[in-house]
Amino acid sequence: MRVRVGFTPAEAVAAPLGVVIDVLRATSTICQALEAGFERIVCVGEVEEARALAGPGVALAGERGNVRIEGFDFGNSPREFSPAGAEAQGRGAGAVGDDVGKPRLVLTTTNGTRLLVAAAGRCEEVLVASLLNLDAVAAAVRASGAGEVALLCAGVEGAFALDDAYVAGRLAAALGGEPDDAAVAAARLAAAFADAAEALGSGVSAANIRRAGLGADIPFCARESVLGVVPRVVARRAGAVEVAAARPRTASG
Amino acid sequence: MRVRVGFTPAEAVAAPLGVVIDVLRATSTICQALEAGFERIVCVGEVEEARALAGPGVALAGERGNVRIEGFDFGNSPREFSPAGAEAQGRGAGAVGDDVGKPRLVLTTTNGTRLLVAAAGRCEEVLVASLLNLDAVAAAVRASGAGEVALLCAGVEGAFALDDAYVAGRLAAALGGEPDDAAVAAARLAAAFADAAEALGSGVSAANIRRAGLGADIPFCARESVLGVVPRVVARRAGAVEVAAARPRTASG
Repeated sequence: MRVRVGFTPAEAVAAPLGVVIDVLRATSTICQALEAGFERIVCVGEVEEARALAGPGVALAGERGNVRIEGFDFGNSPREFSPAGAEAQGRGAGAVGDDVGKPRLVLTTTNGTRLLVAAAGRCEEVLVASLLNLDAVAAAVRASGAGEVALLCAGVEGAFALDDAYVAGRLAAALGGEPDDAAVAAARLAAAFADAAEALGSGVSAANIRRAGLGADIPFCARESVLGVVPRVVARRAGAVEVAAARPRTASG
Repeated sequence: MRVRVGFTPAEAVAAPLGVVIDVLRATSTICQALEAGFERIVCVGEVEEARALAGPGVALAGERGNVRIEGFDFGNSPREFSPAGAEAQGRGAGAVGDDVGKPRLVLTTTNGTRLLVAAAGRCEEVLVASLLNLDAVAAAVRASGAGEVALLCAGVEGAFALDDAYVAGRLAAALGGEPDDAAVAAARLAAAFADAAEALGSGVSAANIRRAGLGADIPFCARESVLGVVPRVVARRAGAVEVAAARPRTASG
């Protein structure tokens, strides 16, 4: 399997199978929200597109400048979708449970959801990766039978982000295969950090999140392979994709 | 000084001071050609633009697919601009001397000259870096007084190239200052290689150059700080820039 890495969205790296990475925080949030019971997450690039999808059976989530968008049910913190996290934030342990009664979550973020929409336009299949589901994604990529995979980093406002590059490097190292120059570099870079907490904590995204008072999201997102969910794009339409949970295929089918 | 790195041209990273890197081989060739005595190098993106500039007092250089363009005086090998290298290639030691009588070299390459033209469109000042002039470029950047520098990698056909990222990392490490995420990553990546020969030799560009039978260019370009020249964009017009030699400013001016 050829393994390619796109460190920034502008490179528009393409392959039959794409894996989208925005570890701080959109793809961590998607994993955690599916784990919490949402059946589908509709990812859209723009705030107004999200508002247009509001209605019965729909919860709205998203951020601009890392802060929850006014009138939305959730921000872009994966902790909001874990019962313990919701309680710690004073939303009450029931908050997630109530909203999970609504089957759909509409999510819009600065970098990650936009890349998801773009990736769905040039990859036949798109998976969603974070550290939370690292092993499950690696297994799903291996099981896909794809001849080429593109590990796509969302970055931060168009620029290279250390945290996403680290996750791409961890996946590239796990996949092996035939890495392109960027995949070789990502794997070498990942190996140069002591651990995920150091890598995620040292970038510009982490600094921005701390400034917004959401620093606790960083160690939350730095936990590795605690979820088995593999979010997958299951539907696409202009400006939006729908993501649903899948478990990696097993040898028995 | 803020230090930014653009690993690929598509990112279009901008700063008042830009440093263009295409170590295999355009920026190594530019350094060596100026050292050999050419007064100006006119860098153009397209072959037809180069041909249109042919005439008395002008030599043409360039490659497509790493191979010298038909009818051109030089390819894109820096060895062609060193007397020993020219002789070894059977051009005779006099070949460089003869062409250097012509004051201008017109150069067009797949990645490097195109990035030089693009960088000149968004940076007030543009320098040209390779490993051959690494220390001299670092000194020139420090002496520039610029508050922000962008280290711009040409990459390979739009994609990330290990060799250019290595040079960006060496420069980022030498400059220190306030690195962005990409500059931190580049410096960490560079430190993960045993030496320049390993870094330059392990990427896709090196494989392409070896396939073209020009593998000897790789160790030639991996020599560090053997030239004091700092090529600088001194004129720009639509689709082209002119580069001339400068020496780093000294404290005494």
